[in-house]
Amino acid sequence: MPTEHHVVILSGGMDSFTLLHWVRLNVIPRLTQRQPEIANVLSAVSFNYGQRHNRELRCAARICSDLSIPHCIIDLTVLRTLTPGSALTGNVAVPHGHYAAENMKTTVVPGRNLAMLALTASHTESMLAPGETAQIYYGAHSGDHAIYPDCRPEFILAAMQTIRASTNDRIGLRAPFMDIDKTGILRRGLSLQLDYTHTWSCYEGGDKPCGKCGACVERAEAFAQNNMHDPALALPEEPVA
Amino acid sequence: MPTEHHVVILSGGMDSFTLLHWVRLNVIPRLTQRQPEIANVLSAVSFNYGQRHNRELRCAARICSDLSIPHCIIDLTVLRTLTPGSALTGNVAVPHGHYAAENMKTTVVPGRNLAMLALTASHTESMLAPGETAQIYYGAHSGDHAIYPDCRPEFILAAMQTIRASTNDRIGLRAPFMDIDKTGILRRGLSLQLDYTHTWSCYEGGDKPCGKCGACVERAEAFAQNNMHDPALALPEEPVA
Repeated sequence: MPTEHHVVILSGGMDSFTLLHWVRLNVIPRLTQRQPEIANVLSAVSFNYGQRHNRELRCAARICSDLSIPHCIIDLTVLRTLTPGSALTGNVAVPHGHYAAENMKTTVVPGRNLAMLALTASHTESMLAPGETAQIYYGAHSGDHAIYPDCRPEFILAAMQTIRASTNDRIGLRAPFMDIDKTGILRRGLSLQLDYTHTWSCYEGGDKPCGKCGACVERAEAFAQNNMHDPALALPEEPVA
Repeated sequence: MPTEHHVVILSGGMDSFTLLHWVRLNVIPRLTQRQPEIANVLSAVSFNYGQRHNRELRCAARICSDLSIPHCIIDLTVLRTLTPGSALTGNVAVPHGHYAAENMKTTVVPGRNLAMLALTASHTESMLAPGETAQIYYGAHSGDHAIYPDCRPEFILAAMQTIRASTNDRIGLRAPFMDIDKTGILRRGLSLQLDYTHTWSCYEGGDKPCGKCGACVERAEAFAQNNMHDPALALPEEPVA
């Protein structure tokens, strides 16, 4: 039976870290093909899109290295030029507070997620041998719905059809966390005994999480609601490279 | 009434050249807003994706300069790294012959069109003022359907929904040539009295059209079926830069 590949879009944050391990622990063991080497069926892609918080990319690399799976960092820095009005890529300050707040909309990077899905599909299709298929995993969740249109179910369902049509039905898209929030994702990860020490969420470019941006606030909420301390807060500052 | 912008994806070839002029002559004059300066409502984007035939980009620039409309060339050279197996970007030879031939599949650049649509949406959304909307125009046509999945109606219809969902309904996608072929597009352009001298189709990287690749063969067919000589064949070679 031809191999089915599983490619996770990994930011280096909590959600996609949980997703990668969820695929590793729930999907890969159930493959009907003869049980494969994990590095032959599971891989991850990350994107350098000029984000301030590119420390997340080092976390993503470490996560993949710990699992000994292939990791491709795709250059999407063109987004920085195209979206100068976003706080994540441009000269706009990162807003502080909760995601529900109106000013959090400056953290939208227009079209970012569709561009990531498109290039993940390019990368994935290019590595398939004849007859092989693949699934792409996307960690969008319900906590993102209010602010980010490209995390909502109507976007995800349309993107699934688009990618399938774009690749002659060879590549599917899955978003298993679409209907749960970050607290639910963390709960799932803790039940899988995952260690979140080396994941990164903060939008600011600092060496420690700022504790104030939407990503930090939402992360703290998720840990609090799971009655846990966030292990990443105990990390020492990174030495200057 | 807020401005509606019209953004054409322009390769510099015949189809998108015709599409740009079709929008200029058929869509812009019918806008209900007070008749605007064309440069405020019509623009074009092109992509440098590492294609051999980047001469098409110089044609695209000239076409926009002749119309005095904004033109943005977006860097998508990352596709060259991601899709080494394509004849348009990689080390694979450009196949000769008719599009119907099996070997023409090496001219597919996996995921290229979805990546272009995604980045065009990024670019377009970033330039919208509050309340403004836009339409993106995509020159896919029925002659592309056999080889290129990302030119077929099922792809285009899904991409329309995806872009709409990704942009909070601010950006639509139109593909008015979806059901006609290159001969029909040329017929439409000739009826608009367009001059195809400075359009470029050939996939090879040479100074003159090779006359043998799928793009040249299809272009020659379109001119023959419209009882025309291709004016681009009479162009002198470009001086070495």
